[in-house]
Amino acid sequence: MHTLQVELGERSYPIYIGAGVLARAELLGRHIAGRQVAIVTNETVAPLYLAKLTAALQGFELATVILPDGEAFKNWETLQLIFDGLLRARHERGTTVIALGGGVVGDMAGFAAACYQRGVDFIQVPTTLLSQVDSSVGGKTGINHPLGKNMVGAFYQPKAVVIDTATLATLPPRELSAGLAEVIKYGLICDEPFLAWLETHMDALRALDQQALSTAIERSCAAKARVVGVDERESGLRAILNLGHTFGHAIEAHQGYGAWLHGEAVAAGTVMALEMSRRLGWIAAAERDRAIRLFLRAGLPVVPPEDMSAEHFLKYMAVDKKVQGGRLRLVLLRQMGDAVVTGDFPREILDATLAADYRALVDQL
Amino acid sequence: MHTLQVELGERSYPIYIGAGVLARAELLGRHIAGRQVAIVTNETVAPLYLAKLTAALQGFELATVILPDGEAFKNWETLQLIFDGLLRARHERGTTVIALGGGVVGDMAGFAAACYQRGVDFIQVPTTLLSQVDSSVGGKTGINHPLGKNMVGAFYQPKAVVIDTATLATLPPRELSAGLAEVIKYGLICDEPFLAWLETHMDALRALDQQALSTAIERSCAAKARVVGVDERESGLRAILNLGHTFGHAIEAHQGYGAWLHGEAVAAGTVMALEMSRRLGWIAAAERDRAIRLFLRAGLPVVPPEDMSAEHFLKYMAVDKKVQGGRLRLVLLRQMGDAVVTGDFPREILDATLAADYRALVDQL
Repeated sequence: MHTLQVELGERSYPIYIGAGVLARAELLGRHIAGRQVAIVTNETVAPLYLAKLTAALQGFELATVILPDGEAFKNWETLQLIFDGLLRARHERGTTVIALGGGVVGDMAGFAAACYQRGVDFIQVPTTLLSQVDSSVGGKTGINHPLGKNMVGAFYQPKAVVIDTATLATLPPRELSAGLAEVIKYGLICDEPFLAWLETHMDALRALDQQALSTAIERSCAAKARVVGVDERESGLRAILNLGHTFGHAIEAHQGYGAWLHGEAVAAGTVMALEMSRRLGWIAAAERDRAIRLFLRAGLPVVPPEDMSAEHFLKYMAVDKKVQGGRLRLVLLRQMGDAVVTGDFPREILDATLAADYRALVDQL
Repeated sequence: MHTLQVELGERSYPIYIGAGVLARAELLGRHIAGRQVAIVTNETVAPLYLAKLTAALQGFELATVILPDGEAFKNWETLQLIFDGLLRARHERGTTVIALGGGVVGDMAGFAAACYQRGVDFIQVPTTLLSQVDSSVGGKTGINHPLGKNMVGAFYQPKAVVIDTATLATLPPRELSAGLAEVIKYGLICDEPFLAWLETHMDALRALDQQALSTAIERSCAAKARVVGVDERESGLRAILNLGHTFGHAIEAHQGYGAWLHGEAVAAGTVMALEMSRRLGWIAAAERDRAIRLFLRAGLPVVPPEDMSAEHFLKYMAVDKKVQGGRLRLVLLRQMGDAVVTGDFPREILDATLAADYRALVDQL
């Protein structure tokens, strides 16, 4: 088992990574202060891992809330199910909420923990690659609003993150690929040598080689922990984690949440951010193509939906949280492994990026 | 104008108290960082003070959300109206939410500010006595749940609290009385000399003497600021602010939120807490009666609803946030001006307190 630390002063917490860690009672118990524990999971994950986690929590007064599965349910109505479950079981301020599942479960359980009785303890047990390398670390929680993704939420740090790499054995390959989009992202924004490691190990990762997965997760979490440690509330540096996300969120919103997986939208969105960085003269076409090849080898889409015009993108991007003072700010690459957040680009370059022929770009590879 | 400071490190903020302060543009402007401002108010307060506040905010990009009035609307559906308004007006992370109204508006606007895009700036402009001396100071925000009051919320501090004493001229007398319940509470829990001041000035307060009101508000806010400065998240001392609230919440919940005003329920609940303190031998019957007389002179109910049995109280008190480790903890008085939070009392004393004949108690005064 590997242990990383997210350094946030009095809100610091450990990330445990290893096969089988979700069943380790002493590891969980270390971070549970009271006698009540509420497990929040979903109907897909519950049959797979709920019994194992429950067995590790013997002796606690346990409540379980099982949510419907999917991004489409990341809304207030589903959040209410958590509050209802906690209140019916008479869970008090000293309770600990454990999120067992992917990013949607983690975001909702975390937001519920942030709000229940104005805040109770919270542990993340992410079971998808995407949530293991991204959403479970850093304290972003929230739900979607019909007018925008993650528009309602809180910065709320967990007491611990317990990443059991063995859970990836039951993850659908499409979701594994979606998680790899964020893994590749870390190389692009702040760890250029990691890109070469990924080129060497991409096949091993997709074949679920536990050693390779463990290394990729640890390196991704370490990158995220570094960034979050510097800028917890996204007033500056942290926004670089959103490489490809502004374009990606537009894709998700336009297609209807859940049609494209988040990681898939991020992959296609990152290709757009790379293309824009190239048009600004910051990276070479060969570097953009290197990243596109890596996304393709990870099994990810690299071309935005055919039915989305530049106008569609602009419409959704205008309410993105990366807008500041009415000016659209984007995460772009100054060079490979070096991301910047900037609103300082000619409008024509953005327009050209939105109008570019990504299909042709991929065909020439 | 008087200025108090709530000391909370980097989350410190000023409280301005004076007649006409809500129209002072430079005062508000000092605490608005961006160009967007969203005023959240309700249909009762809007016709009275919205134009005045809007005039003081010229030059800002302004959105206004007008909520229905009343505790019955302190729920998720009404909260959505705020998110909808902010998103439709395309308010960004740099926006500032201003709560113009009583405690319900402040709690909801504050919770919306805490959650909108994971947190935006927030200013309290309380227009009822209750919110001026209590809910606008200290950062408690939230909404009710069908199974309990304030069960969903956040600790989220405003950037400033602007208390315009002139707004009390339009407050219904019943609501003025409700506010006085919390004013009296400060004397009981931590400022015994203030009780004598209140005995001298109660008639002046009810006659809206601006000087007396100003002094009472300042002294109340100072007491609250002291307590909150020591214990922001209610891990200990802060709970003394809830004198009478555990019994009071039971009354509110049983009668249906809104039937009794919060301050009315707190007054009757405080009388129960005083009676319990007397039964524990901590205060004298004469001290209890002194407080009851003060509540009566403030125009407040001091007898719990006739249709509420001990069982009713216990049912609602079991989900109160002051429950810890399954044990009911109550705020009681060790002596006048000295409150404690304790679960260390014989069960018989609680039962006797719930079964006591409060009508007879008042009749003997």
